[in-house]
Amino acid sequence: MLKVIAEDFIKVEAIETVLPLYQELVKATKQEPRCIAYDLYVDQKDAGHFIFIEEWPDQAALDAHCASEHFKRLVPLIDQHKRKEASYILMDLFV
Amino acid sequence: MLKVIAEDFIKVEAIETVLPLYQELVKATKQEPRCIAYDLYVDQKDAGHFIFIEEWPDQAALDAHCASEHFKRLVPLIDQHKRKEASYILMDLFV
Repeated sequence: MLKVIAEDFIKVEAIETVLPLYQELVKATKQEPRCIAYDLYVDQKDAGHFIFIEEWPDQAALDAHCASEHFKRLVPLIDQHKRKEASYILMDLFV
Repeated sequence: MLKVIAEDFIKVEAIETVLPLYQELVKATKQEPRCIAYDLYVDQKDAGHFIFIEEWPDQAALDAHCASEHFKRLVPLIDQHKRKEASYILMDLFV
């Protein structure tokens, strides 16, 4: 099992623009056959700080997600509105 | 619903010391009546970077967790082995 946190930092004035892009990305990703969990949260203290919490059975499933049509089309559109670079952490269950 | 990411940065030489403390903390927290989820992960690229992913029904449940005997006893013991300050993000579901 592979857990992922991916963080986006979006310009506050672009939040309404990215909302439908995020909605489409989450909906399409949840339909991937090997997606266990893919939810998008927003930081209570920063309305432009978006956090995906993801779960995949293995690295191959995550690689397939990153190679999907919806990922390759939507993520660059979202990234046009970033205020700083996105970051991510790949994690294993510890306890 | 309140989602939380809490990150600890532990000295690598202390990982074996904190393991039983984390195990006790996770076990006791999962038994709290208002805990929805409380899982501990480790960064694949940094063996001393630990990430809690938590879910609570509301802020009061998180406050009760932070006031619990096990939290107030175990977290300071874990913090003795930190290499830098812990951080946390409180989040709402966005999509």
